[in-house]
Amino acid sequence: MNNELEKLYTRIIQRTTINLRELEFDVKPYVWDLIPPGQMEKFYAFYGITDNHPISFYFKHSGLAGSYFLGKSQVINSLLYKSDIRGDELKKKGDVLQFKNFEIELSKDEEIYIEDSALIKTMVHNYSHDPESLEQFFIKNTVATHYSNIHGAPCDGCFIEPFATVDLTTVHDCVIGAFSYIQAGEINHLKIMPGTIWVRSPDNFDFAYRHPRNRLKKYIDFTAESQPQGIFINFMEERKEAFERIFNAMNLESPEPLPDTSSLDRYAVVDLQTQIGENVLVAQRAFLKNAWLGKGANVQENCFVINSRLEGLNITAHGAKIIEADLGRNVFVGFNSFLQGKANSRLTVGKECVIMPHTIIDINEPLVIPERYVVWGLINDEKDLANNSLPIDDFLAIENKLEKGPMTFEGSGKSFITAFQKRIHHILEVNGAFFDGKDNRGHAQKNQDISFNTIQPYPKGTLKGLYPTISIQP
Amino acid sequence: MNNELEKLYTRIIQRTTINLRELEFDVKPYVWDLIPPGQMEKFYAFYGITDNHPISFYFKHSGLAGSYFLGKSQVINSLLYKSDIRGDELKKKGDVLQFKNFEIELSKDEEIYIEDSALIKTMVHNYSHDPESLEQFFIKNTVATHYSNIHGAPCDGCFIEPFATVDLTTVHDCVIGAFSYIQAGEINHLKIMPGTIWVRSPDNFDFAYRHPRNRLKKYIDFTAESQPQGIFINFMEERKEAFERIFNAMNLESPEPLPDTSSLDRYAVVDLQTQIGENVLVAQRAFLKNAWLGKGANVQENCFVINSRLEGLNITAHGAKIIEADLGRNVFVGFNSFLQGKANSRLTVGKECVIMPHTIIDINEPLVIPERYVVWGLINDEKDLANNSLPIDDFLAIENKLEKGPMTFEGSGKSFITAFQKRIHHILEVNGAFFDGKDNRGHAQKNQDISFNTIQPYPKGTLKGLYPTISIQP
Repeated sequence: MNNELEKLYTRIIQRTTINLRELEFDVKPYVWDLIPPGQMEKFYAFYGITDNHPISFYFKHSGLAGSYFLGKSQVINSLLYKSDIRGDELKKKGDVLQFKNFEIELSKDEEIYIEDSALIKTMVHNYSHDPESLEQFFIKNTVATHYSNIHGAPCDGCFIEPFATVDLTTVHDCVIGAFSYIQAGEINHLKIMPGTIWVRSPDNFDFAYRHPRNRLKKYIDFTAESQPQGIFINFMEERKEAFERIFNAMNLESPEPLPDTSSLDRYAVVDLQTQIGENVLVAQRAFLKNAWLGKGANVQENCFVINSRLEGLNITAHGAKIIEADLGRNVFVGFNSFLQGKANSRLTVGKECVIMPHTIIDINEPLVIPERYVVWGLINDEKDLANNSLPIDDFLAIENKLEKGPMTFEGSGKSFITAFQKRIHHILEVNGAFFDGKDNRGHAQKNQDISFNTIQPYPKGTLKGLYPTISIQP
Repeated sequence: MNNELEKLYTRIIQRTTINLRELEFDVKPYVWDLIPPGQMEKFYAFYGITDNHPISFYFKHSGLAGSYFLGKSQVINSLLYKSDIRGDELKKKGDVLQFKNFEIELSKDEEIYIEDSALIKTMVHNYSHDPESLEQFFIKNTVATHYSNIHGAPCDGCFIEPFATVDLTTVHDCVIGAFSYIQAGEINHLKIMPGTIWVRSPDNFDFAYRHPRNRLKKYIDFTAESQPQGIFINFMEERKEAFERIFNAMNLESPEPLPDTSSLDRYAVVDLQTQIGENVLVAQRAFLKNAWLGKGANVQENCFVINSRLEGLNITAHGAKIIEADLGRNVFVGFNSFLQGKANSRLTVGKECVIMPHTIIDINEPLVIPERYVVWGLINDEKDLANNSLPIDDFLAIENKLEKGPMTFEGSGKSFITAFQKRIHHILEVNGAFFDGKDNRGHAQKNQDISFNTIQPYPKGTLKGLYPTISIQP
């Protein structure tokens, strides 16, 4: 890494560490070697222009290698490596947000504001749900690592380990352990252990689970002075080359006649066996190999669908992987879930199941999940499944509390399930799954006319790898 | 063409026509159909970043399809179609320009400023030589058409026909006829007839020639309500596909081991038979097929070298074509010259010859031009050559006046030849022909590390084909 870049990275790490001083957490040994020298100047960055959302980009004194920008965003004094800053669901001027008894109107279009932060292969999406900062979805003094998701979650002073997700949560001065999923409204000064799944709605419900540390390590292991390791990392590495080809061509042809109502991003990898139905959204950095996608299915960023069939109205949330599996209609697969069937031991998921975010199902015998189940945790066989699932109807009946294996649930099961179902409906809606040829247009229909623009860093000199100051306005 | 684009084009044409009212020249019938509908949104534009010259781009309310920007430039309310705005030879803050007895110091870096203009396949390069406007190389209220060159020539209120060149000349309210070459210091309110070659240095010399109208038509014919036609246009059209391939790939490999001291632009077309020596510059949009380029040769933008050998220190100025020819050392081939030998009737040009800009040599018998000749005009055979050339030494001897066929020369032959030789030396120098491994670095050595950035227009809506407002600063 050359001088200016190194200085910038040092400064970002230092700022994050200062924010985390209460937790006595030193960021540097974890991340210093994560951005390989030479990589920051090697890849172009790119941004999309559509006529569906306001154009506004501002980049200053930052490295942006391989990163993608779609919505309104500012990036200042930051290093983004192969990260996605989508922002096409940001709130707009005049939108009214209901927060408890308050109706708050936006005074201007929301923007994603990234300052003094380093994001490595991080997905930033959705809109900020912090009523204190409706117009700014901020990410400050934060280091986020491989395949983490920052989803509607403003962060200040955070260290986010690989494959962790912060979702609809404002996060101040926290360490989020590897493969943790946090959806908790607001958290402060916490060190979240790896593999924690925590879904909390204050006064309504609190779902908590932690992946067994010794079994999780096989999938993702992240320690100081070492690259992240494990099955998740290997899985991504093995498919890296397929993406290189598509990032290296200006124009690509669609492999298949695609329905008019569906969109397949030009930065997705798709083979010729794949079949795409109506109202389907395939986002960039998605990977489809012999995938059958029924009407209204979506495959979001960093998702992989391999030798699998999705009947329709399926949500495959950011980072989810579905291999050798058959999913019924309306199955929801949460963020970064890893559903690994095998050719001789396929996974079958019944219709309307909810696979909680960050669930691992990795089987060596065929496994069938019945219809309408909620599934979580780490599942290698029938026994694990029995310990880590519950029929939705049983969940709906919980009034106070339930403990099942390492999972604890407090509050109203109905409130929890209803919140999930509402969200699933909303996700399908914004993605265009319900488009009828006229109404209910969503990303699947709107994303068909994105034009992509590439930007490159200084190729030489002390600023090598950093980008010039770039402003793009309507 | 859609609404906003059409409005903008209408407005540009109107402004140019108003500037040309004294000449009673209506621009619209000549140009309205020159930008094919759909093309303005079809091609990306791109800009280069190096660490050799200041980065500064500003684009506002403009269409930029297929255009390239390298140096400091602003484009406002303009349509640029497959045009090159190079600007890597612009003057810098603090530079001192000698003009007669004045020494004028630049108060800021020069920029190319394009406003209310339409440029179609136009090459803009060099720096402005107007002492009245040292910091701004302006192109305003101007329409320039296919393969015209605006070379260090600020223009206001001009219509520039296909293959015309304005060189080191400030041009106000003029029509420059097809294939005319004007290098005259400053011109105002003139209608230059097609095929005029005019090189004037006030008080020193005045070279004037006009291609015979009836013979020129075969090569380039440009009339109202019709696309430009003729051999020049066909020549370009036939080679269009080769360029499409290179514009459609993000990264290309060099076809040949290239000397460290040479540069081959990634947007040049080169075949495997081509051999490139030391200190060679091959610019973007150059086309090389079985070309042998000796040490210090250069092939500039829009140049074609086919089945030809250039011994070394050759200048192939913007738009020149060299086919089936052998050129000795130090041969200069001026802008847009068309040297068309045939396989069985090759053209041989002796060392140190000066082929004047906009010369046509199109032969069906072998032709040999002896060493140290000045050559101009339209040459199909030995007889034409005799009428349209003079040994450099005879030219040096002219003290007052010479008429030869349709060519007239007034003034000092020595002053004319010396000016040319100085310029040739300067061109070789800035292009890096004299690089010795340490000193005299030029474009050939400096251009090796350009990084390219693509930008795209709005893909839909009323702004379709126009670009957002883009500002890029260091």
